[in-house]
Amino acid sequence: MSAVFVSLEGSEGAGKSSLMRVIRKWLEDRGDTVVSCREPGGTPTGEAIRDILLDCNRSGILPLTELLLIFASRAQLLEQIIKPALAGGNSVICDRFVDASFAYQGGGRQQPLEQIKQLQQLVVAETMPKLTILLDVPVAMGLLRAQKTGAPDRIESEQREFFERVRKAYLRRARQYPERIVVVDASARQSAVRKQVLSILEQRL
Amino acid sequence: MSAVFVSLEGSEGAGKSSLMRVIRKWLEDRGDTVVSCREPGGTPTGEAIRDILLDCNRSGILPLTELLLIFASRAQLLEQIIKPALAGGNSVICDRFVDASFAYQGGGRQQPLEQIKQLQQLVVAETMPKLTILLDVPVAMGLLRAQKTGAPDRIESEQREFFERVRKAYLRRARQYPERIVVVDASARQSAVRKQVLSILEQRL
Repeated sequence: MSAVFVSLEGSEGAGKSSLMRVIRKWLEDRGDTVVSCREPGGTPTGEAIRDILLDCNRSGILPLTELLLIFASRAQLLEQIIKPALAGGNSVICDRFVDASFAYQGGGRQQPLEQIKQLQQLVVAETMPKLTILLDVPVAMGLLRAQKTGAPDRIESEQREFFERVRKAYLRRARQYPERIVVVDASARQSAVRKQVLSILEQRL
Repeated sequence: MSAVFVSLEGSEGAGKSSLMRVIRKWLEDRGDTVVSCREPGGTPTGEAIRDILLDCNRSGILPLTELLLIFASRAQLLEQIIKPALAGGNSVICDRFVDASFAYQGGGRQQPLEQIKQLQQLVVAETMPKLTILLDVPVAMGLLRAQKTGAPDRIESEQREFFERVRKAYLRRARQYPERIVVVDASARQSAVRKQVLSILEQRL
């Protein structure tokens, strides 16, 4: 088996965390050494950037600043973790990656997609996931689920319309890149979602 | 008098702090309301980014991450402070601005200038200083002076060759933009430097 780069995407309450473990286990079961990471964050510098981004007291962060901070965290993660891991023959699973910028900063914050594409070219270039699983869930259901996991951070505190735009932008990305992004109906029960994800892994990897 | 945007540039030990006050006073004496700021930093979010950038324990920050963090801080400063101040008829003096990215990240860290230009276009666009005063001082003298002001931060801890490249890149910028950037010999005594700066302000503004 050759090392693969898989990203898992989805908005609040989509159930990413438990599926990260499912994907990890599937890859390990086939013999891969797996490096898991998350965005924003995943490196000491990235986690310090994450703290700025999610701090509820920072209501003044402007959309372009947010976008640049996320790509700063991504640059660090790519060079320090993702690229070395792949080069060393390991598989990588990332909890959110560049599609999240198109969804949250592009859709949610309505930053021009052209800006995001430029930064993607500058920072990510060719190091794209081979497979991206998008957990799609209606906004109301996602927010309800997310409420149960604790106090919301700065981004989770956004209004419902924000998350509707995020969801729409995610689904648009999936239509644009069907060879890479697979949408999973995450409103189903956990066991059914898990089954869907496993079947995607079997088919695609 | 119309509001102006002035930036002050120079590497370690060039004497920027005291000249910020000289420029401020000159502008106030002619009747301007003056907003001073610094980079990286100058806003609550920018200062949090500055803390990451200057933290000596963060030896792992990669050049591209550093560049993106500086432009994130700059985006915030431009939208929250510089643009509103200028729009309100105030003059702005900034302790370092975009030329510093070409000097430190371009010269010092040897990041491709094309990347810096792209980010400049994305973040700064037309909001460039009318006048930039570059305090030039031989590296050995600058470092000696800077040592007296306390423990060095992450960037001040760089090797001498780094600062030689920074100085060269600053001087290259000055040759490229002679209509905007004026070089001041900051190795002279303080009173002579001050006089040079005042005479530049008289001639250029």
